Amino acid sequence: MTNFKVQILGCGSALPTTIHMLSSQLVEMNGKLFMIDCGEGTQLQMRKFGARMSKLHSIFISHLHGDHVFGLPGLISTLGLLGRTAELTIYAHQELEQFINPVLNFFCKDLSYNVRLVLLRRKGYNLIYETRSISVFSFPLKHRIATSGFLFKEKEKLRHIKREMIDYYNIPFREINNIKSGADFVTPKGEVVPNEQLTTPPTPPRSYAYCSDTAYDESIVPYIKKVDVLYHEGTFTESEMERATKTAHSTARQAAEIARLAEVKKLVIGHFSSRYKELDTLLNEAQEVFPNTELAFEGKVIEL
Amino acid sequence: MTNFKVQILGCGSALPTTIHMLSSQLVEMNGKLFMIDCGEGTQLQMRKFGARMSKLHSIFISHLHGDHVFGLPGLISTLGLLGRTAELTIYAHQELEQFINPVLNFFCKDLSYNVRLVLLRRKGYNLIYETRSISVFSFPLKHRIATSGFLFKEKEKLRHIKREMIDYYNIPFREINNIKSGADFVTPKGEVVPNEQLTTPPTPPRSYAYCSDTAYDESIVPYIKKVDVLYHEGTFTESEMERATKTAHSTARQAAEIARLAEVKKLVIGHFSSRYKELDTLLNEAQEVFPNTELAFEGKVIEL
Repeated sequence: MTNFKVQILGCGSALPTTIHMLSSQLVEMNGKLFMIDCGEGTQLQMRKFGARMSKLHSIFISHLHGDHVFGLPGLISTLGLLGRTAELTIYAHQELEQFINPVLNFFCKDLSYNVRLVLLRRKGYNLIYETRSISVFSFPLKHRIATSGFLFKEKEKLRHIKREMIDYYNIPFREINNIKSGADFVTPKGEVVPNEQLTTPPTPPRSYAYCSDTAYDESIVPYIKKVDVLYHEGTFTESEMERATKTAHSTARQAAEIARLAEVKKLVIGHFSSRYKELDTLLNEAQEVFPNTELAFEGKVIEL
Repeated sequence: MTNFKVQILGCGSALPTTIHMLSSQLVEMNGKLFMIDCGEGTQLQMRKFGARMSKLHSIFISHLHGDHVFGLPGLISTLGLLGRTAELTIYAHQELEQFINPVLNFFCKDLSYNVRLVLLRRKGYNLIYETRSISVFSFPLKHRIATSGFLFKEKEKLRHIKREMIDYYNIPFREINNIKSGADFVTPKGEVVPNEQLTTPPTPPRSYAYCSDTAYDESIVPYIKKVDVLYHEGTFTESEMERATKTAHSTARQAAEIARLAEVKKLVIGHFSSRYKELDTLLNEAQEVFPNTELAFEGKVIEL
């Protein structure tokens, strides 16, 4: 099975602490690294955890609050110093231009590669990137400014052909992919062997959804239905509900409620308020609603 | 004696490593914290080393390369989240405006305090800040863009009055400061007691100079003459002299040469190239010229 994993680089909220760094994570699919958000210190976290800068493919910015973007200037500069030549695409809301264009114009005049900005739409479920095997979608979250969640999804895969059937029917190599795609096999004598006899169902495509920052919002449920892993902010405990509502953030319990409604396989909560030194209450409150909840931490690797 | 110390927050060069962070340091004088340079991750280093954000008085930016300024947006935002109300003065070359104004306009619209930019002159030895007891000067360094060094200096202090003389002549309290300032004492009977008999010389004012980034440049020697501690970049070993010259940086040995010419008491070298995992060669090459050389490291405290 090809690689599909997520590494948390930072899962604190606006104020960094000695425990939690600012928002950023890496999604690795098919050997490519996709970054989601890029708070200050992201390049330092990449070094700390040995993530290879050369594998960084593109960057997805959920929204234009400083704790999600202030790491971009340093990262862009460092990639230049390392001699990157491949274009770097940054998917973000339009407001990024006001922050990043002055940086590019002033600090990055002689950059060895091109930075391309692709603007996210504020509404709807949009395919923003795809290859033959993966798709990335954006969808709106409910925060104080334009904010998007992201869904990283494998495409439907080929069926598995049974090795013993290849031998039994002496299936030629050129037919293999057709059969994996669902075709029946016709023997030289004209006998039709139905596909179901030759194959087993494909491995279900895996998917990962990122929802931060966002208030509790059931309207995102259809977009993240049945994902393997949902990362959803759980900034506050229930006792801080009022503050959560006021700042358009979620409690850990609300994150779990979304996970339950979306029938995801696993929930990872993050974007922890700096007020919490211990995260037990957040975890407990979430697990009461959705037992398969884990806490994010810097360096955590989530295998999909 | 009042507090006067420097703490190194980052002493790497453009590329951060797992060992060295980007340029920043804190000068503490009379309970105020003055920051010199603010590379990405500076606020994180302040947290790590327990530096009190509330004591931060002002920021001095040597030059507008990213590794010396990309920590400003995050630090400015965090000070706002912490509820700062005192104006924050940033001393920097004019180019900072292009970087920081968009940040202030977009991310810091509702900032709880004012950020005031004071522009540095490109030429000459300029008093840029002073109180009754300290002065800060800027002077030009030789780098690829406009760059300033900084000198933090105590003002001339009062002479020490001998306690036994106060008792012997029954000197009234109101005369004490005059005598400390050099006045003689006249007894009620008209006897003149010369100041030298009543006092000992003042404690020599202490001083700290910061010179980074800069090529080897003897013209700075008069500005930093006899300082107690000189922080001077020593980015490269002698074997990388060509690269040092090309990039307008100094070798460690060149830093030591400046320290020797300026007759400083102690040299601390920093701004280490990311190519060095071990810094022994840098230290040895510097100590051959100027024995009282130390290596900077993250967290190092220099007491003056």
